[in-house]
Amino acid sequence: MAEAGVPLEVLVAVSRSAPGTLARQVETQLRDAIRAGALRPGTRLPSTRGLAEQLGVSRRVTVEAYAQLGAEGYVELRQGAAPRVAATNPAGADPSPVTAAAPEPAARYDFRPSRPDVTTFPRAAWGRCLRDATRTIRTADLLYGDPCGVAEFRSAVADYLGRVRGTVATPQRVVGTGGYLQGLGLVCHAMAARGARTIALEDPCSSEEPRIAARAGLEVLRLPVDAEGARTDLLPTLAPDVVVLTPAHQHPLGVVLSPGRRRVLAQWLADSAAVLVEDDYDAEYRYDRPAVGAVQGISPERVVYAGTLSKVLAPGLRLGWLVVPGWLLDDVRTQKQLADQGSPRIEQLAFARFLEDGHLDRHLRAMRTLYRRRRDAVVAALAAEVPEAVVGGIAAGLHVTAALPSHHDERAIQAAARARGVALAVLGDYAPRAPFPPTLVLGYSRLADRAATRGVAEIAAAIRTSRR
Amino acid sequence: MAEAGVPLEVLVAVSRSAPGTLARQVETQLRDAIRAGALRPGTRLPSTRGLAEQLGVSRRVTVEAYAQLGAEGYVELRQGAAPRVAATNPAGADPSPVTAAAPEPAARYDFRPSRPDVTTFPRAAWGRCLRDATRTIRTADLLYGDPCGVAEFRSAVADYLGRVRGTVATPQRVVGTGGYLQGLGLVCHAMAARGARTIALEDPCSSEEPRIAARAGLEVLRLPVDAEGARTDLLPTLAPDVVVLTPAHQHPLGVVLSPGRRRVLAQWLADSAAVLVEDDYDAEYRYDRPAVGAVQGISPERVVYAGTLSKVLAPGLRLGWLVVPGWLLDDVRTQKQLADQGSPRIEQLAFARFLEDGHLDRHLRAMRTLYRRRRDAVVAALAAEVPEAVVGGIAAGLHVTAALPSHHDERAIQAAARARGVALAVLGDYAPRAPFPPTLVLGYSRLADRAATRGVAEIAAAIRTSRR
Repeated sequence: MAEAGVPLEVLVAVSRSAPGTLARQVETQLRDAIRAGALRPGTRLPSTRGLAEQLGVSRRVTVEAYAQLGAEGYVELRQGAAPRVAATNPAGADPSPVTAAAPEPAARYDFRPSRPDVTTFPRAAWGRCLRDATRTIRTADLLYGDPCGVAEFRSAVADYLGRVRGTVATPQRVVGTGGYLQGLGLVCHAMAARGARTIALEDPCSSEEPRIAARAGLEVLRLPVDAEGARTDLLPTLAPDVVVLTPAHQHPLGVVLSPGRRRVLAQWLADSAAVLVEDDYDAEYRYDRPAVGAVQGISPERVVYAGTLSKVLAPGLRLGWLVVPGWLLDDVRTQKQLADQGSPRIEQLAFARFLEDGHLDRHLRAMRTLYRRRRDAVVAALAAEVPEAVVGGIAAGLHVTAALPSHHDERAIQAAARARGVALAVLGDYAPRAPFPPTLVLGYSRLADRAATRGVAEIAAAIRTSRR
Repeated sequence: MAEAGVPLEVLVAVSRSAPGTLARQVETQLRDAIRAGALRPGTRLPSTRGLAEQLGVSRRVTVEAYAQLGAEGYVELRQGAAPRVAATNPAGADPSPVTAAAPEPAARYDFRPSRPDVTTFPRAAWGRCLRDATRTIRTADLLYGDPCGVAEFRSAVADYLGRVRGTVATPQRVVGTGGYLQGLGLVCHAMAARGARTIALEDPCSSEEPRIAARAGLEVLRLPVDAEGARTDLLPTLAPDVVVLTPAHQHPLGVVLSPGRRRVLAQWLADSAAVLVEDDYDAEYRYDRPAVGAVQGISPERVVYAGTLSKVLAPGLRLGWLVVPGWLLDDVRTQKQLADQGSPRIEQLAFARFLEDGHLDRHLRAMRTLYRRRRDAVVAALAAEVPEAVVGGIAAGLHVTAALPSHHDERAIQAAARARGVALAVLGDYAPRAPFPPTLVLGYSRLADRAATRGVAEIAAAIRTSRR
C-alpha cells in the first residue's frame, strides 16, 4: 500500500493554448494511455488533488476528468482509496502476449542437483546484515567505485578462503561476481583479449560452460574424466590456453582429483603459460575425509579461483567471487566494468558482515550435519532399492551419481520418474561427449530422510517400468 | 566481532598415523599456511576449544600448538579474545603485490556528471524494504528461477514505467539487469545471435558503449548529433541492425530529440527490421517542460527500453531493467542466463516494495526541487563567470554542457581545473569522432548552491590560466 499522502506521478501534460478544456485534455491523455496499455489494469493513479498539484490546475479539472473516465469504465473510483485503472477495462488485453518462461515444475520428490536447501536460509541474520550495511555503507560506495567490489567484502573473502580453502590471496586480488558463470565469462573474455584461443572443459560439465566460452570467442576442447578425476595427464598434449576444473568434487561425476593428477596438474601449470579456472563450487561440503585445499594455494600465479554463495547459502543471492593472479587482475577488472560495472555494493558489505559475525561458519556446520544425514539416507535407499547401481561421488557436495548397467536408458528413466512425481538429472544433461554408462545424478540436499527413501523407491519403480 | 561461541573452521587435518605428535602436526600446518599467505595477518583463528572439537583431539593438543606459534610470533594470543594471525609476523608481505585500482580522487568541487547526490539516498526506507524482502521472499525465489527476474519486480516496474514514462509493457517483457551497460550488452549479444552485424551509436556517447558492442561482435557505426538531437534522418542510409539513442536527454550533450526527428525515427522503425535501444537514463529529471514520453510507447515491437536506478537512487545498487519486444524476449533471457543467471533476487523484491510504497515518487519529487536549484546556481554562475560559454542541455538531467570558443583546449582546462581541486568531464571523454567545439560537461547534482558558485569561479580561473 502507498503511504497516505505520497503524490504519485503520471505522464500527463496540459496547456491552456491547446485545443479542448483542461479537463478534456487530462481525460483524453489518460484514456489514450490506458487504451495503449501504458497504464495497465490495476495501476494506481494519482489522487485528484495530487494530479491537480502536479499539473498546476484546479482540482475541479481533475475531478471532472476522473468522473468521465469512471463513467466509461476505464478508472475505478472508490471513496477513500487511490483511483486505479479498472481491472477489466474497455482497452482489453495485451496486443501481442509473450509466453512466460516455463515455471520450475513442482515435484513430490525433487532430486535435481546443484541446489541447496534454502528453507534453512538464515533470513533473520541476513536481513540484519543487509539493514546494517544499508545504514553504514560509505557514500562513495553508493556511487560507482572499483568494479572489483567493496573493500570490506574483498578483505573478508580473502581471509575466509585462506582459512577454510587454503587459497593465497590479498584482498586486491578478490573480484566480486554475480556467481560462478559470470566469473567464468569474465576470465574467458579477459584471456581472449590477451590472445587466448582455446579452452579445455571437463567432459562432462555444465551445459552453459561451452556456450559461455564460445561466446567469448574461445574454441572448446574437452578433457575426459575418469575415476581419478579429470585427465590432467592429457593437458600437455591438449595444450589449451585456459582449462576449467572442479578438483574438489567433479561436477557432476563427484570424483575428487587424485593426488597423482594434482601433481601432474601443478607441474603442467608451472611449465606452461596457461591459466586454470578452479571451480570450487561446493567444496565446503565434505563428509568422510578431511578437506583438500584449493589448487590455487599451490599455484596462485596460474590459477583463477572461483567460488559462489549459490551452494553455501542461496543461488538467489547471485553473489560470488574470483581470486585472480596479479598479472591478470586489470584485464578482469576491465571485463567486469564492461559486463555490469560491478556487483551490487550493499550486498557485498552485508556478506562481509555476515562472514565477520561468524554466521557462515555456523550455517555450514549445521548444514553439513543435515546433508550428511540426507546423503546417508539416499545411499542406503539406493543400496536397498537399486542394488545394480554403482553409486559415486558420495564423499562431498550435494549429490551422488548412480551408474546403471548399459541396457538402461537414462532419458527413459528420467521421463518415467517425472511421471511418478520425481525430478532428477541424468548425465546427458551435462553435455557429455565421451561415452558413459546410463547415469542418474541425484541431489539429496532438499530431501529429509523419509522423502529420500520414498523418492528412491519411486526411482526404482521408474527404472523397472522403463527397462527396454 | 564474531559472536561468542561461533566455531570458526580452519583447513587443518591430523592423523595418528602421520609422523610427529598431533600438536606438532597442527602447529606445522598452521605455520605453513601463515607463511604461504593463506592465513593473512589479522585473520581470526578458531579457539583452542573449537579447533580441538573440529579435529576430534584433546584440547591439550591445540593449546600446545598455539603456544608454540605464539612464542614464534605467528599468532597473537590474548586472554578472552579470539586468537589471530599476528599483524606483523615472520612470514612477511605478499610475494607479488598488485596495485590497487586508482581510488576516485577527492575534489573540493566535484562536477563529474552521471552521478546523483547519494547523500540523500533514503537509507532507512531502503533498509526496511530489504529486510522485509528477506523475510518474505518465496523459497522458490531463493533458488534460480527465471533469469529475467522476480515476478513482483517485473510487475512493479511495468506499472511504474507505464505511469511515468508512457511505455507499453506487460510484466513478462520486463527483464531485471545489473544496470544500463549490462542491458546493452544483453541486447547486443541477443541481436548478434540473430544475425545482426552493425550497431549505430550516437556521436558522442559513453566510452564503454563501443567496446560493449564490439565485444558482442557488432560493427560500430556512428550517428551524428546536432541541436535537434541524433540525426535520425540518416538512419535509412546508415541502415544499422541496432541503434542506441538517448531521446529524452542526449548523453552527454543534453539535447532533447526534436519532434521532427522523433517522427522520422518512428517511421524508420516501422519500415525496417532494426531495433532501437532507448537509453532513458535520467528522464525522470526534467525541470522546465512537461516530460516527453518514451519512444517505446509508440513502437513497442521495435524498441528495447532501458532504465536504471543509477541516476534516480544510487549507482551502487546496480539494478536496472529492460522492456523487450515479445519476439526478442527469449533471446534476451538466454543471454541473461549466460551472463549471470539473473540479478540478485532479494533486491528486486525490495525495489518492488519501495515502488509500491511510493518511496521512489517521493524521493524523485524532492530531488527534482533540489537539482533544479543546483542547476540554476550553476547556470547563473556560468553566465556571470564564463560569459563566452554557450550553455546547453539545461532542461533535464543532472548536467549541463558549456561549449567554449574554438581557441580553448578542453583537456588543458580539465587539467588546470583538477589542479584547483575541481573535477569535471569534457566532451573528449565521450569518444567523439565528429569535430565539436571545446566543451565542458558539468554535473551539478552534488553541488549545493554556494559550492556551485565557488566551483564555477575556479573553473573560470582554470579557463583563463589554460588559455593558449
